[in-house]
Amino acid sequence: MSDPESRDDPESRGRETRVREAVAGRREVLNRAITEELSITEPERLYEASRYLLDAGGKRLRPTTLLLVAESLAEVDPGAVDYRSFPDLTGGTVDVLAPAVSVETIQSFTLIHDDIMDDDPMRRGVTSVHRAYDLETAILAGDTLYSKAFSIMLGNGAPTDRTVRAVEILASTCTKICEGQALDVDFEDRDDVALEEYLRMVKQKTAMLYAASAGLSPVLLGADESVVEAMFSFGLDVGRAFQIRDDVLDLTVPSERLGKQRGSDLVEEKKTLITVHAREHGVDVDSLVETDSVADVTEAEVDDAVARLQEAGSIDYADETARDLVESGKQQLEVLPDNEARERLFDLADFLVERGY
Amino acid sequence: MSDPESRDDPESRGRETRVREAVAGRREVLNRAITEELSITEPERLYEASRYLLDAGGKRLRPTTLLLVAESLAEVDPGAVDYRSFPDLTGGTVDVLAPAVSVETIQSFTLIHDDIMDDDPMRRGVTSVHRAYDLETAILAGDTLYSKAFSIMLGNGAPTDRTVRAVEILASTCTKICEGQALDVDFEDRDDVALEEYLRMVKQKTAMLYAASAGLSPVLLGADESVVEAMFSFGLDVGRAFQIRDDVLDLTVPSERLGKQRGSDLVEEKKTLITVHAREHGVDVDSLVETDSVADVTEAEVDDAVARLQEAGSIDYADETARDLVESGKQQLEVLPDNEARERLFDLADFLVERGY
Repeated sequence: MSDPESRDDPESRGRETRVREAVAGRREVLNRAITEELSITEPERLYEASRYLLDAGGKRLRPTTLLLVAESLAEVDPGAVDYRSFPDLTGGTVDVLAPAVSVETIQSFTLIHDDIMDDDPMRRGVTSVHRAYDLETAILAGDTLYSKAFSIMLGNGAPTDRTVRAVEILASTCTKICEGQALDVDFEDRDDVALEEYLRMVKQKTAMLYAASAGLSPVLLGADESVVEAMFSFGLDVGRAFQIRDDVLDLTVPSERLGKQRGSDLVEEKKTLITVHAREHGVDVDSLVETDSVADVTEAEVDDAVARLQEAGSIDYADETARDLVESGKQQLEVLPDNEARERLFDLADFLVERGY
Repeated sequence: MSDPESRDDPESRGRETRVREAVAGRREVLNRAITEELSITEPERLYEASRYLLDAGGKRLRPTTLLLVAESLAEVDPGAVDYRSFPDLTGGTVDVLAPAVSVETIQSFTLIHDDIMDDDPMRRGVTSVHRAYDLETAILAGDTLYSKAFSIMLGNGAPTDRTVRAVEILASTCTKICEGQALDVDFEDRDDVALEEYLRMVKQKTAMLYAASAGLSPVLLGADESVVEAMFSFGLDVGRAFQIRDDVLDLTVPSERLGKQRGSDLVEEKKTLITVHAREHGVDVDSLVETDSVADVTEAEVDDAVARLQEAGSIDYADETARDLVESGKQQLEVLPDNEARERLFDLADFLVERGY
């Protein structure tokens, strides 16, 4: 199902409203926590560059997921308790904003370094960090956020055995993200990437951080191992769905709303589930867009390319794959107590593949 | 005192021999631990790039310091016990190779990213990672080592409260290194860097990792807080001395032995204690070397520059400052039990300012 259709569906629209409210309701507290945990100190230029993308916005889907899982597990009403002293499942309290800010900090570090590697000029509607500052500062801003994410995670206040496990998860997730990004870069020069291989890359590059976001709450709150595992599976499923949806949106959403040039993946010859599928179905993907600079590509060129991909069924295939993953992820949510927070997680999973931004 | 003099002193030569033996005696076990902790898996090119500098050599001074402090505290004979199940001070065992490899891994990550920032062509006698591979791979190799350092640290086997503290130290050390590197980059464009400011930068960029190396052993072995503090102070002192000596060696050691072009700091207009001192004493530091590319500078040009710096007393000043720091650091070692390992730490401290490589 293509993008405009789904957003015309009243059920989808209701879901989108509820998700936007859930995100908006937690955004203020998350933004405040980000400024608290990543205060701008000396050297100021370094810390300003580190905060630049975090302050530019972002959907905050990963930390929102983490908070919703915590709220569902602790069975608390949204907004009724202080996230900084949040009830765990063994009679103690945990600071759940610490891991929430930590995963968002990791996300921001990876965006800064990824933009250097792709030399992307725009991100979140603003100039990318290495263009707004310089290469040195962008590398260092990413490196600073990287260590800060670990320091922030350590402030969770849980018993030390849970904290050690949380740090283990954070470290292994970062390693997987690097491995995934290395594969992504490698794929740009290869014509024979299989669907299976592409999905494995997405799992590492994108889905692992969603898995960590969903899995860290049960770890820190002291939930059963079965809950931890289910939340990791949930994250891996919806994380992959999110990336696939992102690949679709890169082709179908106007540049202004996207915050960067539409079709930039095609120009940069990045592999996506769509182009991998299209190539397997006889489309000459390399000649879809002749221009090789994001600054020079025309809307008409992107339109033609999208029409060809639609003809080959590749965009529908990507949409269906994302939907299947979301259905699989939603089944994992059944392990959580049935409450409002869990309902929002169901909504959020559906929203990930229905969203138009 | 200049470099050739000190190495002609018999006492220095005896010390150098003992330090080289101490390092050599631990190198094999450290190298084996590095290959165990950082095995080359998929994606192979990423892991090969990550291991490239670690395999190229390096003096292993930081992990050797860490092991020597552990040996002194536990009062064990060198080589008599397995570092993987090393006796702590409370009746348990700790894997001290985990933190040793962790600090060396952090060191390697910072070298890779620093070489990108300076676009240095050589390191440890081999092509730098971003030149041997490419920018993307070098950024990712550094990022991979970064998370691996945390995963490796977590394998230390100490009680979880000590492990949490060790991770805290690692994370805050990495943040300080980034801050120091940002200052170093910033200093390149400034003519008014004061000696005090320069030394603060060196403390963050270089000495903090020495401090962590010396301080992690008492933390993980469960030593008294006074020992932890003394070892941090020791590391901060000898770490600064090490960097100042490095700056002297960059001017005085032949390029072949240095593993990179002699005088590259001058060409790149990097601030060092020597140039900051020289400027404060009326030397027109910017005109010392006219060439602005490391590849094009001549030995004669560097010789002339060194003569000017020597005339201004700047090289002697740097040597004296390093020696004072080492004397201060050695006083901190008195807190350790009097044994062979402690003797080697005294030797190592002296060696840092006497070494000719």
